[in-house]
Formats: sequence, structure tokens, C-alpha cells
Amino acid sequence: MAAAVTICDVGPRDGLQNEATVLEPFVRAELVNRLAGTGLPKVEAVSFVSAERVPQMAEAEEVVAGIERAEGVAYSGLVLNEKGYRRLAATDLDEVHFTLAATETFNERNANRSVDASVAELAGVPKERPISVSISVSFGCPFEGVVEPSTVLRLAERLVEAGAEEIVFADTIGVGVPKQVRQLLHGTKSLGVPVGVHLHDTRNTAVANAFAAFEAGATVFESSVGGLGGCPFAPRATGNVATEDLVYLFRGEGIDTGVDLDGLIGVAEWLAGVLGRDLPGRVYRAGASVAR
Amino acid sequence: MAAAVTICDVGPRDGLQNEATVLEPFVRAELVNRLAGTGLPKVEAVSFVSAERVPQMAEAEEVVAGIERAEGVAYSGLVLNEKGYRRLAATDLDEVHFTLAATETFNERNANRSVDASVAELAGVPKERPISVSISVSFGCPFEGVVEPSTVLRLAERLVEAGAEEIVFADTIGVGVPKQVRQLLHGTKSLGVPVGVHLHDTRNTAVANAFAAFEAGATVFESSVGGLGGCPFAPRATGNVATEDLVYLFRGEGIDTGVDLDGLIGVAEWLAGVLGRDLPGRVYRAGASVAR
Repeated sequence: MAAAVTICDVGPRDGLQNEATVLEPFVRAELVNRLAGTGLPKVEAVSFVSAERVPQMAEAEEVVAGIERAEGVAYSGLVLNEKGYRRLAATDLDEVHFTLAATETFNERNANRSVDASVAELAGVPKERPISVSISVSFGCPFEGVVEPSTVLRLAERLVEAGAEEIVFADTIGVGVPKQVRQLLHGTKSLGVPVGVHLHDTRNTAVANAFAAFEAGATVFESSVGGLGGCPFAPRATGNVATEDLVYLFRGEGIDTGVDLDGLIGVAEWLAGVLGRDLPGRVYRAGASVAR
Repeated sequence: MAAAVTICDVGPRDGLQNEATVLEPFVRAELVNRLAGTGLPKVEAVSFVSAERVPQMAEAEEVVAGIERAEGVAYSGLVLNEKGYRRLAATDLDEVHFTLAATETFNERNANRSVDASVAELAGVPKERPISVSISVSFGCPFEGVVEPSTVLRLAERLVEAGAEEIVFADTIGVGVPKQVRQLLHGTKSLGVPVGVHLHDTRNTAVANAFAAFEAGATVFESSVGGLGGCPFAPRATGNVATEDLVYLFRGEGIDTGVDLDGLIGVAEWLAGVLGRDLPGRVYRAGASVAR
């Protein structure tokens, strides 16, 4: 039976790219393999970006080579442009995760081009593999402030026209609240593709936002094991919502994720050991059961 | 204009009682005074319990003596029994916070008596000041596991009969999910008194639960500045949800709390300095504004 929601762990990519510690490709591949072993249907394994700009993501091809494919798991890589797409296309990754931002300033800083130019890049890449597109700063931008849902929705429509088969709204700096999530998701019914959210727990609203998104029709949830990573715009802040925290929520709500929660907690424990510190995730530290 | 929700900071009590560091009464009074200065309508300042059992709460009367009363703020103390009530009655605190547990095992361990005996204690104390009663482990017990909403609701009804003018459902070990909150709150409409929640963020569900509780009719929210305190049943876990995280949620939702969020963040920063470590609260570390 298919799970009610599809959780994609982006820890090997969005989590690790915000860590001060740079991990070797074989360790990053082991993280991907451990995650795939917990029943997660999707893992974002790598990012095809400049190793100079993001040394944590260097040697993506080496990471992919270290993946021991698990049955039923879709492995993806992140790309920002056609150049990144070409690198991905030379691997056997299953899916393309393309990203751009909802605001001009953020997109210029992150992808070094205008939003229009990013949409054109997406339109230009071959559609040989499923393409999911995530829209950064959908709920607020560190440079431009609050982002209007109507702006994000118009962009989402253009992205679907350009070939996106899934749209993920990212709260990149973790400022959103359920009201915004509901407003935005309410407008996505006519997109005609599955929609999801990529939530950061920077201001402790990620679990509430995930639940609001689920109730508003989102089926895709991107998160990082252990709540890995930080926030480049707030040095003391935490990053992605922890995958096991989301799985705990969904389990309690009776919503099937297909993920083995205890197995996932084990991966968080292992990763905390690799990084030599406690991770921000709460469920892995507290344990998942009520009585002890 | 009255705020839409009433937030009571229980940091000086529930927060500090779970800290390894024992603070002097004058520091605890300063915490109470700083909290009252942020516009919080209620502060739970002390607990009248055995100083041998809970050294962090010793010399409650000294703390009360150090309170510089702020206009419009109701100051309360926690009591478990008639003996504690007599100590509170000798002070000028405005409100009584009485607590007992939803399960026999937890109540025996915490209050050293049966649930029936605790209800009888409540019935026996004079009703000279408003009495709010919180029911510990309303969503799950570390000894007895899942707690049925019907059990908690029957207890709440008996407490109202015994003189409770407000009922607060406490997720003492932080295991609840929105579904449980909705189930429980749905059944409280006939209680005839204001109801609230006291949420711990042990498994990252507290903000989602608070939002669910608000939408289900709860008007009272107990939380601790900075997410102070730990969880005695899970050594690495966090405790009370951070008050400023709740205020951030409510502000984003357009729900008035009457609290100055930046002022509250300042109190969390001050307290982190006093305790010499980062606190678990997320908003105070990330900052409350979107753009910077």
C-alpha cells in the first residue's frame, strides 16, 4: 500500500551543505544508504553546484557512485541550472530536483541569474527524468521580507508550464506560520501536479506548518534527519525540520509514511556521532515512545 | 482591548525546577519581574513544595517578597495540597495554581497520594483567590502510557465541581499530537470554565499542539521563556515550549497576546547569560523578523 505522504530526506544535501564540517563522499554515501534503509521513499543525495562555492557538496559523482540502491527508493540530485543538469544526467540518479527562488535578490545571490532566467533554464533542460522544482523563500526572504502568496503561485504556474512535475514550497529561512501555509496551499489546487513543502524549523513553526500543509493537501515533505544543518542567515539558529520529528507527528496522527521511526532515530544517532555533536532534532533525543 | 489568548509564563517555576542550577531567590524574583515587564498577563512565580524534594524551588516566600508588582499582571504560585495552599495564602499572590495528575502512578510519585485524595485536597482549600488546576500527563504518562481523553475529561469535570475556575491540560512529557489535542479540547465545551494547555516541546509537537488547541477553543497557554528546563524522564530532551516561540506563532497568525516579542527575546537572552548556556527556544536564537 502506498504511504499517504511522501517524505524526502534532504539531509545529505541541504543538511550537510550548511554544516561547518565537510564530510568525505564515502561518508555522505553511507548517510544516503542508511536513510534509504529506513523505508524513506526518496532521498536527495547530492547537489551539482560549484565545489568552490559549496565545498560541502564537492564530488557529487563520488557520492552517487557509493550509493547501494535500495528497492523502491528514488534518489535525486539538486541542480540550479542546465550545467548542473548535465552533470546529473551523466549519473543514474532517478530524479532531478531543480531549485530557484521566489524573489529576485535571493535568486541572484543563490543562482547568479534572474528568476526569469532560471525559469528559462528549467524550460531548456531535457525532460528525461521526473523533475521536482522547489521554490526557495516562498514564505519570506532575508533580503526582500515577506513574500506574497500570489507571487509564489504565479511562479509555480510558470514552472509547471516549463516542465515541473512537482512543486515544493520552501521556507528557506524558517519564518512561515500555518496561516501562510494554508493561503499558499489553497491556491495550488489548479496546478495539476503534486505539491509539497520544504520546511526549516528556525522559529519552531515547522511541525505546525507541516501539519497545516498536510491538511491543505500537500503530499510531499522535505526534511533532514536529525534536523541537520544550520541557517546561513542566523548563525545560532537551526535549519531543516528533523525528518524523525515529522514522522513522529504523522505516526501520531495515524498518517502512514512508510518510514521505520526507530530506524531513522538510529541514523540520527549515528550522524550525531559522525559530526561529534548533538543535532537539533528533538524526537531522536527524547525517544519515540510514551512510556519507558 | 483584552488579548485573544492569555499566556502564562511558568519559567520561574516549571522551567527552573528542571534546571540543574539552583538560582537564588533574588535572581528568580528578577526573572519574574523581567517577564512581567514584557506585557505577559500572568506569571507563575513559585512553587510551594518541599525544599528537600525540589531544592530549585526553595524559599518561595523570598521570591514573592522580591516581586515588584506590575499593573495588570496576575502572579501565581503552584501548590499540590492543602499545606502548600496555606503557604501561598500567607503571601499576596493573586492566583492559586493547583496541580494533580491524570494517572494514579504519576500522582503517587509527584504528590504522594491518590488522584481521589488530590481532588479532595482541592475541594478542601478555601476559594479566596482564583484557582486554576492543571492536569499533568493529560496526553501520556511515562509510567502508564497513553491516557484516554475520556479519563482526563471525567477528572476535569470533578475538578470543576471541586472549585477549579480554569482547567489546564498538561503534556508533561511532550508526547501529544494535534489529533489528541483536538479530541480532548472538543470535549471541554461543557465544562463551563476557561481551558488551556501546558505544552512541553520534547518531541517538537508543542507549537502544532498549541495552534490546534487555540483553534479548538483553548484560551490559556502555559510556557517558559527560552524553553527553559528539561525533562526528568529523558535526560537529553528539552522541556516547556518557549514562550517567545508561541508568541511568534500567534503574532504571525494575527492573534493578539499583548506580549512584546522583542522584550521577551531580551529576557531569554538575559536568562541564557544567567545560566551560562544557550536555551532550547528557537525564536530568541534566530530573531523574530523576516528580513535583516
